[in-house]
Amino acid sequence: MTRDGDMGAEYTRAMALLKLTDADITARLVALPEWSPLGEQIQRTYRFTDFVASMAFVDRVAERAEVVQHHPDILIRYNRVTLSLSTHDAGGITEKDFALAAECDTFAAQ
Amino acid sequence: MTRDGDMGAEYTRAMALLKLTDADITARLVALPEWSPLGEQIQRTYRFTDFVASMAFVDRVAERAEVVQHHPDILIRYNRVTLSLSTHDAGGITEKDFALAAECDTFAAQ
Repeated sequence: MTRDGDMGAEYTRAMALLKLTDADITARLVALPEWSPLGEQIQRTYRFTDFVASMAFVDRVAERAEVVQHHPDILIRYNRVTLSLSTHDAGGITEKDFALAAECDTFAAQ
Repeated sequence: MTRDGDMGAEYTRAMALLKLTDADITARLVALPEWSPLGEQIQRTYRFTDFVASMAFVDRVAERAEVVQHHPDILIRYNRVTLSLSTHDAGGITEKDFALAAECDTFAAQ
């Protein structure tokens, strides 16, 4: 990788850990209308056909969470799964939360 | 199976769906000291080494829940997992909840 490439990666990592402003969050939620801001986190509840479908979704979310080392709080209530995302190191909501939220939406749509 | 055996199984199923009294619940919690009554449910939070260990436990709980068709609410917060058990059909806490609670404790101990 070139030096430019390294610097690009570092810049991306740094940006991911910057706490977003309320205006930034509102703007980004336009692209994720099922997600709601709730204090220092964003939250969405998914509805599935049954418990087995909920768990299949949760296992995909968990696998991805471990890969990116960013772990949502996960609440499973039979056919409903609520994800709550926050970046504890930044003390609020960051790009990392929106990136994982968008990925979780694709898992639920499959 | 004999007729006596059938009646025994029916009796066991009926008992499992009887809402327990507060005195019954208190007595049964002696055997499960990590569980707490919370309104119309019993609840325990388990602590594990990390998220992967939490998910391994949750997957075992989920598999058993599906077998016995009794599904706890499951909250995963990185290395902590909170299970909440209630029998909705009975409108409260029954033997089914204590039976599954005891099984979940054995999964966590392994």
